[in-house]
Amino acid sequence: MNSVKIIGNAIYLPENKVENDFFNNKFNLEENWIYKRTGIKSRYWAKDESASYMAIEATKKLLEDKKFDAQKIDCIVVASTTNEKMMPGISFEIQKALNIKKCFCIDISSGCSGYINGLDIVRLYIASGKIQYGLVVGVEVLSKYLDINDINTSILLGDGAGATLLGKCEESKIYCSNIESIGQEGDILTCSTNENIYMEGKKIYKFGTIKVSENIKELMKENNINNEEIKYIIPHQSNIRIMKSIANRLGIEKQKIYVNIEEKGNTFNASIPIALYQMEEENLLHNGDKVIIVGYGGGLNLGSVLLEI
Amino acid sequence: MNSVKIIGNAIYLPENKVENDFFNNKFNLEENWIYKRTGIKSRYWAKDESASYMAIEATKKLLEDKKFDAQKIDCIVVASTTNEKMMPGISFEIQKALNIKKCFCIDISSGCSGYINGLDIVRLYIASGKIQYGLVVGVEVLSKYLDINDINTSILLGDGAGATLLGKCEESKIYCSNIESIGQEGDILTCSTNENIYMEGKKIYKFGTIKVSENIKELMKENNINNEEIKYIIPHQSNIRIMKSIANRLGIEKQKIYVNIEEKGNTFNASIPIALYQMEEENLLHNGDKVIIVGYGGGLNLGSVLLEI
Repeated sequence: MNSVKIIGNAIYLPENKVENDFFNNKFNLEENWIYKRTGIKSRYWAKDESASYMAIEATKKLLEDKKFDAQKIDCIVVASTTNEKMMPGISFEIQKALNIKKCFCIDISSGCSGYINGLDIVRLYIASGKIQYGLVVGVEVLSKYLDINDINTSILLGDGAGATLLGKCEESKIYCSNIESIGQEGDILTCSTNENIYMEGKKIYKFGTIKVSENIKELMKENNINNEEIKYIIPHQSNIRIMKSIANRLGIEKQKIYVNIEEKGNTFNASIPIALYQMEEENLLHNGDKVIIVGYGGGLNLGSVLLEI
Repeated sequence: MNSVKIIGNAIYLPENKVENDFFNNKFNLEENWIYKRTGIKSRYWAKDESASYMAIEATKKLLEDKKFDAQKIDCIVVASTTNEKMMPGISFEIQKALNIKKCFCIDISSGCSGYINGLDIVRLYIASGKIQYGLVVGVEVLSKYLDINDINTSILLGDGAGATLLGKCEESKIYCSNIESIGQEGDILTCSTNENIYMEGKKIYKFGTIKVSENIKELMKENNINNEEIKYIIPHQSNIRIMKSIANRLGIEKQKIYVNIEEKGNTFNASIPIALYQMEEENLLHNGDKVIIVGYGGGLNLGSVLLEI
């Protein structure tokens, strides 16, 4: 199997930033009520931006930043729960916008952590030698599927897109994944067509802490890797309490858990590539660093990936 | 890479069969008008059956027929354009219904030929040694997204589900795929949320004949295989005219193109596994036979797979 590396990331965030004050007024909350419970101070909500538009903008930025020729992209995988079309999918819209002559496109709908499935699939295509370069995009317009009066969801969720470019790598790089689903408990986080997102907060907290930390521990044990060797854990940005609890359960320093939920809220499939981009911008990731990326959410679906930068 | 084989297939068709007479009366057509143009005499339209229900029923039948333990399934991939939920996906509903303790689930939405992507992904996971057994399900409830007054779509489309079980194989088996997308032409076959399926028949005919036969020719050339060595071509059941034209363009005998559109119509992602099941039932497939499976449709998305039974 060939080694695979992340070449780069880029994002698109809607222009419209919604601060906690909006909800403080609406629900008559104390100033710090939301922040204390969620770690969130603001989130972005799309006005006119569609999921396809945001995905295309993030991809264009990525290719510009990395001076990467779009024609070299062999496959595009998009993970989203909020595509506005049954067909064509968002991945096809990206191919169209960039006018890529030859590639294959897949839209994945596997809850909030489909990005992890997409990453694992694209990496496997590259590792097997079938392709050389692949794009994984996570994008959501969750604000369109919110009951704004439901404090359990409306204060948490944000919109955005993040794109990750993966490529074949001559240097040897670690990559391992531990992805699993729990359809049996899928009822605690749902969204039917034409309905709003429904979350059972307490049960999700339990899932997001116990199951997710067990999944990471399994991955680390299988690969015989300890907390000291890990530079960062980059979790889905669901809620600051869940992320802190994961750190506690793993016995890892809180500074090693990358958190950017404060400004952006929970953006489901977009949250991990947005975090990766921001870490790249903050110069936190260096060649050879071992990091663990962790996704979890609706389905239920969860998975962790150990990879070397 | 490990070899992979198809262990078996099973299907679910809705109880409600809609004969051409229904449309003959509605559109005041001559008795053979629809059949001559499409090759279709009937199709099944779901009444109460949801996509999840049909997918679960097809999967249960498959496991019963093959006496296969559900707990051995490592992954479930479902391809559909007509899932009624944004989350959880249909694959998660299957995991839940079968109470599979450990597996991962992915829903793919890549137009009418997402089944081909699903097959390719599951095969790659097995071939890489990451998993041993995987399920690929194609399912559609197209009747819910039809304008019954649109003769271009309503007479063609049907509902149904087909499930395919893939597994690691000790014997060496050929497997090659040629999957590509043409997002640039995605406008000729679309469906937005809460809208009906839209098709530009003439352009789809051109795509389904020229591009699809070119794709198959490429696959055969790359693998140095000729018409004589192919036992069957199993195309997406879109329209009899497209299938006949593919045979002509390949210069292959018409009897080698498997056709079952007459009774079932065009069922998008379900059409190939339904065809595979029927061929199994008719005892047409034998160990060592080389067949080509071909999907094409919305996205645009298309792909052919050469595999050994």
